Amino acid sequence: MDIETFVERSFGEWRSQRSAHHLAFAHFEEVRSTINIEALTVDEPGVLELCQRYKVSPDEVVSPFKMSWEGESDWDEEQVIEGSTILVPVPDSATTGKLLREQGYAETMESAGTYCITDDGTFILTTAYERAAAEEKIWFATPDLRFRVSLIKTSSGKGVTTASFSSEVRRGVKS
Amino acid sequence: MDIETFVERSFGEWRSQRSAHHLAFAHFEEVRSTINIEALTVDEPGVLELCQRYKVSPDEVVSPFKMSWEGESDWDEEQVIEGSTILVPVPDSATTGKLLREQGYAETMESAGTYCITDDGTFILTTAYERAAAEEKIWFATPDLRFRVSLIKTSSGKGVTTASFSSEVRRGVKS
Repeated sequence: MDIETFVERSFGEWRSQRSAHHLAFAHFEEVRSTINIEALTVDEPGVLELCQRYKVSPDEVVSPFKMSWEGESDWDEEQVIEGSTILVPVPDSATTGKLLREQGYAETMESAGTYCITDDGTFILTTAYERAAAEEKIWFATPDLRFRVSLIKTSSGKGVTTASFSSEVRRGVKS
Repeated sequence: MDIETFVERSFGEWRSQRSAHHLAFAHFEEVRSTINIEALTVDEPGVLELCQRYKVSPDEVVSPFKMSWEGESDWDEEQVIEGSTILVPVPDSATTGKLLREQGYAETMESAGTYCITDDGTFILTTAYERAAAEEKIWFATPDLRFRVSLIKTSSGKGVTTASFSSEVRRGVKS
């Protein structure tokens, strides 16, 4: 599967259940959210800005998209978690490349991660931050069901502090 | 990685956090448990019994083992979940084969599943039951940290009813 196909299969509105395991304390966190993934054009200001920041020509960009979410955690039900980010794939082959992102997961800052898509269609993204590293695996069980495993690692990459698992069901589809 | 190596890396006592996502109702279930995985010899009565049941010669068996668990679910904290099962790999190549099991996950009956180990060291087990199918992926993030994603599917294999994710940290090791 190439990156265009992977991104295209991801478009739409998803109902997400996420469980985070905080490993040192064996704590659980549960988050329910709605995720929206939509196509952007390369000439969108946010896309061009990321290109400029990372010195990438807009010609190298494929399938930029916007992801937005709104949800709540069982740790603090009063607080609504919401946000959005722009993601910009910059392939160096059909199945590998860089992913520029306005705002990262582990730290609230922009990031440039490295992705690959394995033979069995799993998208794997690795991102190094200043004080941590993140690894994310996303795969489709069916066209309307995606899974996502995210690891937050120490910056050395040796220890895992948090592992989380999301089930994402396309909105309006019975699982 | 071959099946001997995979089984050997699994021996020991593990502290497990498992989150189950019941997809139709967007329900969460949390289970904390201790899992023990230990080697058996091929001449163990339980191993020979499974061989006989599935018409497999004990010569074909590699690295039989016993898995036992004890834990509690947040759905019913009074109830202690405990059990054990014998697992018998019957390879047909270094990375593929059958896995005989005294008792399955999706239904409380014995099972014979089919496994393969991918290039990146992920063990994938597929088991067909009478009214459901199960798919389990297990991989090591570090020698002391395993992850496991289990799907319970409808017997047609098209729908997923439950997805669960386990983080397993070797006992006595800080994650």
